[in-house]
Amino acid sequence: MSVCLNSGYLKEFISEHELREVFPFVKAAHELLVGRSGAGSDFLGWLDLPVNYDRGEFSRIKAAAEKIRQDSDILVVIGIGGSYLGSRAVIEAINSQLYNLTCSDAPRVYFVGNSISPTYFNEILRLCEGKDVCVNVISKSGTTTEPAIAFRVFKNLLEEKYGVEGARSRIYCTTDKNKGTLKELALRNSYEQFVIPDDIGGRFSVLTAVGLLPMAVAGLNISAVMEGAAGAVEDFSDCDLEKNDCYRYAAIRNILYNKGKRAEMLVSYEPSMTAFLEWYKQLFGESEGKDDKGLLPTSAIFSTDLHSLGQYIQDGSKIIFETVLDFKKPREDFYIYEDEGNFDGLNFLANQNMSEVNRRAFEGTVLAHTEGKVPNIILELETINEFEIGNLIYFFEKACARLTSPELRNIKKICLRFWESLVLRICARKF
Amino acid sequence: MSVCLNSGYLKEFISEHELREVFPFVKAAHELLVGRSGAGSDFLGWLDLPVNYDRGEFSRIKAAAEKIRQDSDILVVIGIGGSYLGSRAVIEAINSQLYNLTCSDAPRVYFVGNSISPTYFNEILRLCEGKDVCVNVISKSGTTTEPAIAFRVFKNLLEEKYGVEGARSRIYCTTDKNKGTLKELALRNSYEQFVIPDDIGGRFSVLTAVGLLPMAVAGLNISAVMEGAAGAVEDFSDCDLEKNDCYRYAAIRNILYNKGKRAEMLVSYEPSMTAFLEWYKQLFGESEGKDDKGLLPTSAIFSTDLHSLGQYIQDGSKIIFETVLDFKKPREDFYIYEDEGNFDGLNFLANQNMSEVNRRAFEGTVLAHTEGKVPNIILELETINEFEIGNLIYFFEKACARLTSPELRNIKKICLRFWESLVLRICARKF
Repeated sequence: MSVCLNSGYLKEFISEHELREVFPFVKAAHELLVGRSGAGSDFLGWLDLPVNYDRGEFSRIKAAAEKIRQDSDILVVIGIGGSYLGSRAVIEAINSQLYNLTCSDAPRVYFVGNSISPTYFNEILRLCEGKDVCVNVISKSGTTTEPAIAFRVFKNLLEEKYGVEGARSRIYCTTDKNKGTLKELALRNSYEQFVIPDDIGGRFSVLTAVGLLPMAVAGLNISAVMEGAAGAVEDFSDCDLEKNDCYRYAAIRNILYNKGKRAEMLVSYEPSMTAFLEWYKQLFGESEGKDDKGLLPTSAIFSTDLHSLGQYIQDGSKIIFETVLDFKKPREDFYIYEDEGNFDGLNFLANQNMSEVNRRAFEGTVLAHTEGKVPNIILELETINEFEIGNLIYFFEKACARLTSPELRNIKKICLRFWESLVLRICARKF
Repeated sequence: MSVCLNSGYLKEFISEHELREVFPFVKAAHELLVGRSGAGSDFLGWLDLPVNYDRGEFSRIKAAAEKIRQDSDILVVIGIGGSYLGSRAVIEAINSQLYNLTCSDAPRVYFVGNSISPTYFNEILRLCEGKDVCVNVISKSGTTTEPAIAFRVFKNLLEEKYGVEGARSRIYCTTDKNKGTLKELALRNSYEQFVIPDDIGGRFSVLTAVGLLPMAVAGLNISAVMEGAAGAVEDFSDCDLEKNDCYRYAAIRNILYNKGKRAEMLVSYEPSMTAFLEWYKQLFGESEGKDDKGLLPTSAIFSTDLHSLGQYIQDGSKIIFETVLDFKKPREDFYIYEDEGNFDGLNFLANQNMSEVNRRAFEGTVLAHTEGKVPNIILELETINEFEIGNLIYFFEKACARLTSPELRNIKKICLRFWESLVLRICARKF
């Protein structure tokens, strides 16, 4: 299935007429988006990517991943920002947050070049000692400080271990198609190359080779990821707000922002989604955080963080709304048996799957937070697998791009003035 | 050394006279705190804990940790909220965020009972297969859903593996001194017990057995942690704002909040501090998030998150201030050598330690964000070790408790009304 918006808990926060009133602006933005006629439309390559991607390169990604799985214990992924967050998000979501502990027959995947901490860097180098290592360096230019320092060290490490010739077949460059320091180096050394397309910005790059090669090395079915995303291209193509949950989500976020909310907290009840929530922060933070405006993107894993942030959410400053990812089925379940002596008095929780307890925690929390005047947007998905995560990625990309992307600055300037004065008027009427 | 506040970047955001004007309120709050005369003063056990802790129990903690290190491959820590965040924060800060990958001669430490995800639970169970396991269950009552479910399963697992008698010596209960389900069970089964003191709330419990036993199992020098905290008891005891960086930090936070900031972002340039930042969120979130008020506690690891949240911080809504942990020396360093061919043009970064590059990133970012009108509070520390982290923990506990803890509600009600009207007046004058 596709991402499905459940706005049932929003009734007391947003009226249907408020949504109806933004219809024309959504439609205008939609037309500029799909017509690629707005300013900066050169950066909309992500829009059709799930259906139009380069099949030849896709096959090479799969082949490279298979080779790495055969000849390496470790894949070191060198990248920062969009060249780091996406693949980590999907690998951990679908495999595990503990992937490097649980991957018994696949290479470990270590991410470096995403900080300048020497302590962390030394740790990874020690973990690579005595292991067979491949490197995927991901950088549009090749000159961003963090990944460039890391690549310098790992290139040297591989050349010392395997010789210059041996290292050549263990370095994979994901970079610009035509130019840049890393591109030149890759050409000179005949490294295998994959492309960061010119028309796709870093934070939208997860479904290119940037994200796909590490995912495939970690054993993910990247075809299913693309199918899920392609499903979303279809599912969220209608300009009618009634029929497009993606646009509806974007509209609701905007209305809540204009009503005074200042932070969106993206919530999951699955710890494996932790890195995915970080990916979301970049996507929305970089798209919206401009001109002294925009929602602060934050995240939480429940029920864990209910025991730390729960009170703030419910009783603290009323600046937050929550968007909760509701996966209907967990990847695995666990049956809670009855205990004969009922030593802990917990038998009332027994004779059911743990996922049912998790679901009740979810339902209770949504109700409590809604009563505490915190709007809750629910995004329903079937389960955590490649298809669903691919779908969710595209859902967020399109929701984020609709009125907020730099590619749409012109329509933003025109629309938002109307939009804001409109919503301000509506707010003034309501409160 | 102790935590040292650098307020040098705040000049354009807060004037000295603003701080002077809150002197009397800080003094009043201080007197209620140390006199333990405020409402709820029964919960101020953490105040003298670093100097008055139970030495007998402390020795038992060390002995139990040594036994676990001898007879176990894995320590499973069962707890949620304050019974989870503190020990994880310190273990990862000082050892590594990748502790379970890097700990070659010490037990791995897995945290369960902090969520209801069956997927995560199954992963940990699989990681325990064929290994020698001990359990530290941490719960004041023994009936909180998440840890109670987890303990039921792990108690059963140990009894099946080692027999009821064998399991007895592998289960360590950290719980109430006198009452509760877990206490009764521990007595009935002669489990070794450690105490969650009645006068210390969950979020302040990291320096009790709650935090100390897992830390000691992971090889930390818990005596040094307590010495660092004891140093802070002394360092931050003066009621004079000029001489007390802890109170000064608390005052600055309050002034910024009353000037319209809505979120504090605690920042570190060390990935190993990630879990510590989560601990901070609970401490402040639960203390301040009341009565529709309080700063939203958020966190970031730089330079990593500069490539995702950086733009929002600098150009987005101006609701944030940053508090940056500035560790002067990293735990380890890494020397960047010159490359003969300078293939990447990066030789300008060579011939120096990576920590120097990290420091320049820090300095440049603070300047850029300050110019972007984001106030930056800097907390300076020598390095990341047990003493410094113990000191930092107490620093935050006292800063948090000063005017925000539930124990001080009375003084809050009295002071804050004055405080707010005062600051509002000051703001009105300034803007």
